[in-house]
Amino acid sequence: MRPSGRTVSQIRPVTITRNFTCHAEGSVLIEFGNTKVLCNASVEEGVPRFMKGQGKGWITAEYSMLPRATHSRSGREAARGKQGGRTLEIQRLIARSLRAAVDLKMLGENTITLDCDVIQADGGTRTASITGACVALVDALNWMRAKGILKTNPMKHMIAALSVGVYKGNAVADLEYVEDADAETDMNVVMTDTGKLIEVQGTAEGEPFSFDEMQEMLELAKHGIRELFDAQKAALN
Amino acid sequence: MRPSGRTVSQIRPVTITRNFTCHAEGSVLIEFGNTKVLCNASVEEGVPRFMKGQGKGWITAEYSMLPRATHSRSGREAARGKQGGRTLEIQRLIARSLRAAVDLKMLGENTITLDCDVIQADGGTRTASITGACVALVDALNWMRAKGILKTNPMKHMIAALSVGVYKGNAVADLEYVEDADAETDMNVVMTDTGKLIEVQGTAEGEPFSFDEMQEMLELAKHGIRELFDAQKAALN
Amino acid sequence: MRPSGRTVSQIRPVTITRNFTCHAEGSVLIEFGNTKVLCNASVEEGVPRFMKGQGKGWITAEYSMLPRATHSRSGREAARGKQGGRTLEIQRLIARSLRAAVDLKMLGENTITLDCDVIQADGGTRTASITGACVALVDALNWMRAKGILKTNPMKHMIAALSVGVYKGNAVADLEYVEDADAETDMNVVMTDTGKLIEVQGTAEGEPFSFDEMQEMLELAKHGIRELFDAQKAALN
Amino acid sequence: MRPSGRTVSQIRPVTITRNFTCHAEGSVLIEFGNTKVLCNASVEEGVPRFMKGQGKGWITAEYSMLPRATHSRSGREAARGKQGGRTLEIQRLIARSLRAAVDLKMLGENTITLDCDVIQADGGTRTASITGACVALVDALNWMRAKGILKTNPMKHMIAALSVGVYKGNAVADLEYVEDADAETDMNVVMTDTGKLIEVQGTAEGEPFSFDEMQEMLELAKHGIRELFDAQKAALN
Amino acid sequence: MRPSGRTVSQIRPVTITRNFTCHAEGSVLIEFGNTKVLCNASVEEGVPRFMKGQGKGWITAEYSMLPRATHSRSGREAARGKQGGRTLEIQRLIARSLRAAVDLKMLGENTITLDCDVIQADGGTRTASITGACVALVDALNWMRAKGILKTNPMKHMIAALSVGVYKGNAVADLEYVEDADAETDMNVVMTDTGKLIEVQGTAEGEPFSFDEMQEMLELAKHGIRELFDAQKAALN
Amino acid sequence: MRPSGRTVSQIRPVTITRNFTCHAEGSVLIEFGNTKVLCNASVEEGVPRFMKGQGKGWITAEYSMLPRATHSRSGREAARGKQGGRTLEIQRLIARSLRAAVDLKMLGENTITLDCDVIQADGGTRTASITGACVALVDALNWMRAKGILKTNPMKHMIAALSVGVYKGNAVADLEYVEDADAETDMNVVMTDTGKLIEVQGTAEGEPFSFDEMQEMLELAKHGIRELFDAQKAALN
Repeated sequence: MRPSGRTVSQIRPVTITRNFTCHAEGSVLIEFGNTKVLCNASVEEGVPRFMKGQGKGWITAEYSMLPRATHSRSGREAARGKQGGRTLEIQRLIARSLRAAVDLKMLGENTITLDCDVIQADGGTRTASITGACVALVDALNWMRAKGILKTNPMKHMIAALSVGVYKGNAVADLEYVEDADAETDMNVVMTDTGKLIEVQGTAEGEPFSFDEMQEMLELAKHGIRELFDAQKAALN
Repeated sequence: MRPSGRTVSQIRPVTITRNFTCHAEGSVLIEFGNTKVLCNASVEEGVPRFMKGQGKGWITAEYSMLPRATHSRSGREAARGKQGGRTLEIQRLIARSLRAAVDLKMLGENTITLDCDVIQADGGTRTASITGACVALVDALNWMRAKGILKTNPMKHMIAALSVGVYKGNAVADLEYVEDADAETDMNVVMTDTGKLIEVQGTAEGEPFSFDEMQEMLELAKHGIRELFDAQKAALN
Repeated sequence: MRPSGRTVSQIRPVTITRNFTCHAEGSVLIEFGNTKVLCNASVEEGVPRFMKGQGKGWITAEYSMLPRATHSRSGREAARGKQGGRTLEIQRLIARSLRAAVDLKMLGENTITLDCDVIQADGGTRTASITGACVALVDALNWMRAKGILKTNPMKHMIAALSVGVYKGNAVADLEYVEDADAETDMNVVMTDTGKLIEVQGTAEGEPFSFDEMQEMLELAKHGIRELFDAQKAALN
Repeated sequence: MRPSGRTVSQIRPVTITRNFTCHAEGSVLIEFGNTKVLCNASVEEGVPRFMKGQGKGWITAEYSMLPRATHSRSGREAARGKQGGRTLEIQRLIARSLRAAVDLKMLGENTITLDCDVIQADGGTRTASITGACVALVDALNWMRAKGILKTNPMKHMIAALSVGVYKGNAVADLEYVEDADAETDMNVVMTDTGKLIEVQGTAEGEPFSFDEMQEMLELAKHGIRELFDAQKAALN
Repeated sequence: MRPSGRTVSQIRPVTITRNFTCHAEGSVLIEFGNTKVLCNASVEEGVPRFMKGQGKGWITAEYSMLPRATHSRSGREAARGKQGGRTLEIQRLIARSLRAAVDLKMLGENTITLDCDVIQADGGTRTASITGACVALVDALNWMRAKGILKTNPMKHMIAALSVGVYKGNAVADLEYVEDADAETDMNVVMTDTGKLIEVQGTAEGEPFSFDEMQEMLELAKHGIRELFDAQKAALN
Repeated sequence: MRPSGRTVSQIRPVTITRNFTCHAEGSVLIEFGNTKVLCNASVEEGVPRFMKGQGKGWITAEYSMLPRATHSRSGREAARGKQGGRTLEIQRLIARSLRAAVDLKMLGENTITLDCDVIQADGGTRTASITGACVALVDALNWMRAKGILKTNPMKHMIAALSVGVYKGNAVADLEYVEDADAETDMNVVMTDTGKLIEVQGTAEGEPFSFDEMQEMLELAKHGIRELFDAQKAALN
């Protein structure tokens, strides 16, 4: 039924390449099938003005698609002079999700910025970004500990994210672009490796969805995200 | 347990005033307790460029808070020269939700813009906006039918929205500001009066939430939103 | 002769509602007939950078029309990314006028911002804004005295403003929209309750005006503004 | 009493140089003492979108100060990314004033833009701009007639402008910078050579002004502007 | 003498990977040592407005550095709301250079956009961009011929670019970052494979350079660029 | 052969007028034939943030064309809300060139801004700007010495700039607009009066240029710029 021949619960092959670039404190290329996102973590001393003097750190994120990451070229946001609503929405989601993974007090007055730049898009760029950024964040925190900036590990739990949806009447996991474009419902789920939820964002693109479909999608997400945690662990060892 | 003395499932008094201003085709002041939002629906001939020639209409939304809708004054977005990420996120949510209520083909090549301006804020401004905008939309569509622009009613179902959350360990409905600021989890739910879901956006502000808490919040939303549909119907009769 | 049947010197009914919203230190809804403006006064400690260290306070203003305050919808300035020339011109006028009402030395290094948001427009929005903002300013200064921030009252005199013009060859007071659109000359006059002038801005929209017409308009303004001072006083008692 | 030793009604020497640059259809350098403004008139076929199809022309204006036209350098508006409120207010005044000088129907669907760039500032830049732009406009209209674009002269009357004010308790004409900075009241008056008023903009910078002072300022303006019309005529012969 | 141990004329290893991403009509990752630039060529029907109706095509370019392409993170231009002067200067250079490689008449009314995104920077990003973009352009033109959009090959000659400079008193080829930061002179040279010059941009960063040093740098560029043409040819076979 | 009848090496008459305006510390109107640029040097205490604490000064530049400096009117950058790529490129060139003329350590923590505003354009505006700005800079440094801000002269050498090009197959010096629009190659050369190069920017607008043409252009520049140094010296005595 699915264009790729995958089963409803089958996610695409996931590849995580650490140290993809040489300057960032954490640099991960994550691939969910044909979706490829470069996630760079940058450590900077100090925090933004609104956080000053609280003895806490800050984690933020920026998201962007290269203009030709998609089938047809889309205008460069820097040239248009502003980031679009979709971009802002996604980078706010990435940042909130990663902040939920870290004890900001233990981070001290330092800022980590997660830059998620989509090199190639085939659906699921925001969930790939979150999953890859979490690995880049681990590397950045390890770098801080190696440098003596941190004594302990402020990571509370790993997080990962998966898109699920209702496609041709069935709940399916990890939608690729051709499915996403046709899906009745699209839902992004961010979870911790302790089995709890960080974010659930479900949207009826076409027909409204039932409470039962909601349950099915959550179940698919729970199982699919477990595979992402395995991929993260394998990459980190 | 709740600052207002409300029970966990009790929503605030809802007031819906139609024809609040005189120029808009639909003009509704909606109040959820101390939260007051003016929802104006404007009908314009034609559709945005990306929709042209498809024989379909368009529904869009803009959201704004008056600078002193809140406890302390926040800078005016027009003066700062751009809309913030939160604003864009909310107005995209409102627009998607209302589009899901209407058969765009039956709307013809017309655009309806829903302006939701928060006069006074006390939590739940986005859900009040959606609930009030739906009534303004009904009035605008009736105006179009009275003018002969539409022959039939393109409304597929009414929609309404409620915020629910986890506050001090309990799932509660319709958070006001003091609860929202302290809540562990905040979730906005948009439903149809046929009992289906349009949007679910749950966010762990502090601690991650469990699948069980997710269920409790959905149940509270389902019941609370029924009361909103009653208020909409009362206002429209 | 006038569309409303008013005499040339007759102003529209004026309604002033204090405490219209609950958060601002001064919050006034002023109505000149169908023109409705919400004037919120916000008190903030400190002054803008260019005023620092002079031991003086600052009063500023921002003006905006809700997109559907008018017959047809106009684009939201926040969405367009800048405030238009008309908006800037009006808010500069409001701010200058209100600053002329207060002894800035006695205000101390505090800033009061007057947000004038037009809910519904039918001509005379800038003069209604000034007249209503003056009442909101009084309430904000009283709040400061009640809080002990001010020992004395820095108000030098009340101010109020009225539009006058030449319509179909006659000088008339308080133009509503249909008159304003057709007027040969439009003039805004800001006065003190001690009978002096703060601002006079007369513009020939069509034909130039004579020195005699100028005198007639000033006379109408002088008398009409007295009624506004009465309305302010009634509201404040 | 005046820093320059001038009498209260004495204006500064006025110099008008036509054809100051070679490309514009009208190009005038106007000097009011040390204030020097280059006024270029550009003729373009067609009108802005909001004027299309009315068979009428359009006259608009842009105003700018070179960054070092003043005692200390002010930031370049192009570098800051927006025109300030003062700039917009002034260029709106210039445009309105010049539009009042011309029969737009007779102009046909053509646009004339008046660029007023202040080379050196010493008070009165907006009134010098209007007075100089009127001469540049005459030259541009003559160019259009010579080219056969216009058959008749659409100029209804000449216009000129002067600043007057209350300085150390006396009404004075044509304030230079040191007077302007200290003046209690500043008023700009735009008149036709038929003795009528186009714009009157009076502002109490310090103390409010009386109706009598208003009359004195208007009288000074009336007499001073006559000298400006003489200077315009001399330059055009 | 050089930090890398290279001789003065020795360029870094050059790697050219075609089809690096799957959507663009031409997609090349080019590496000059540690400098890595992704060059995507996008074909679009039509030309910008200023080129319409001339029967000619257009080639344009956009350049960007990922925020963490460099040692420390630099702000994202999309977030700051404008492209910096350096970015604009570089993308204008890339576009001019590539336009010089193509017969725009033979291209027909089509536009090719070359997006050069720097994944990792170590000096010479603009010359790597030009050299890689030329290969992506060849692939895009071949795609157009395969699709039947073009009958003939509009490519006039291959182009490639190299940075040369004066470092510690010696002319050297292909400066890497540590050399560039210390160089007295930096010069970018764009050449055709027919041995002619397209662009020469030499800048004294510290001391002025002599006409003799200018000659030495040009000679180094001429020889180094020949190696780049070899690398391009190898990649294209 | 040249439209003006000049020989290939003949530059246009150069006029340098000092003290053109009265407020700037250095104010020069430079004319290369019909090209007229006003170059104002402004001295300010302190340096930009990125230069703080290094005990060095800073020299920067801004460039602008008045809207009607050219044959047809071009939009004002302040109105469009950003400076174009050409403007940024030119002002970066002017600033780099002038910085190369001065020992920034000897300048102390002071900033000199060179505003180059083109009053009338006929080709060569950037080279006229550099040549004129150097004279304005000398005047500003002399003003600083007269005020006691500087003890010694931080000027290392004079600089001047000339455009050269290939026009109808011949290398020519100092292109005016009609030549520039038709030239195959355009090259700007900035030199010191000690005979060394600061900047060389050559661009093939049409056909690529040979290494021999490059030499011819450099020779023409060398000789033409000597005449500019003579004009600078004459103006400064």
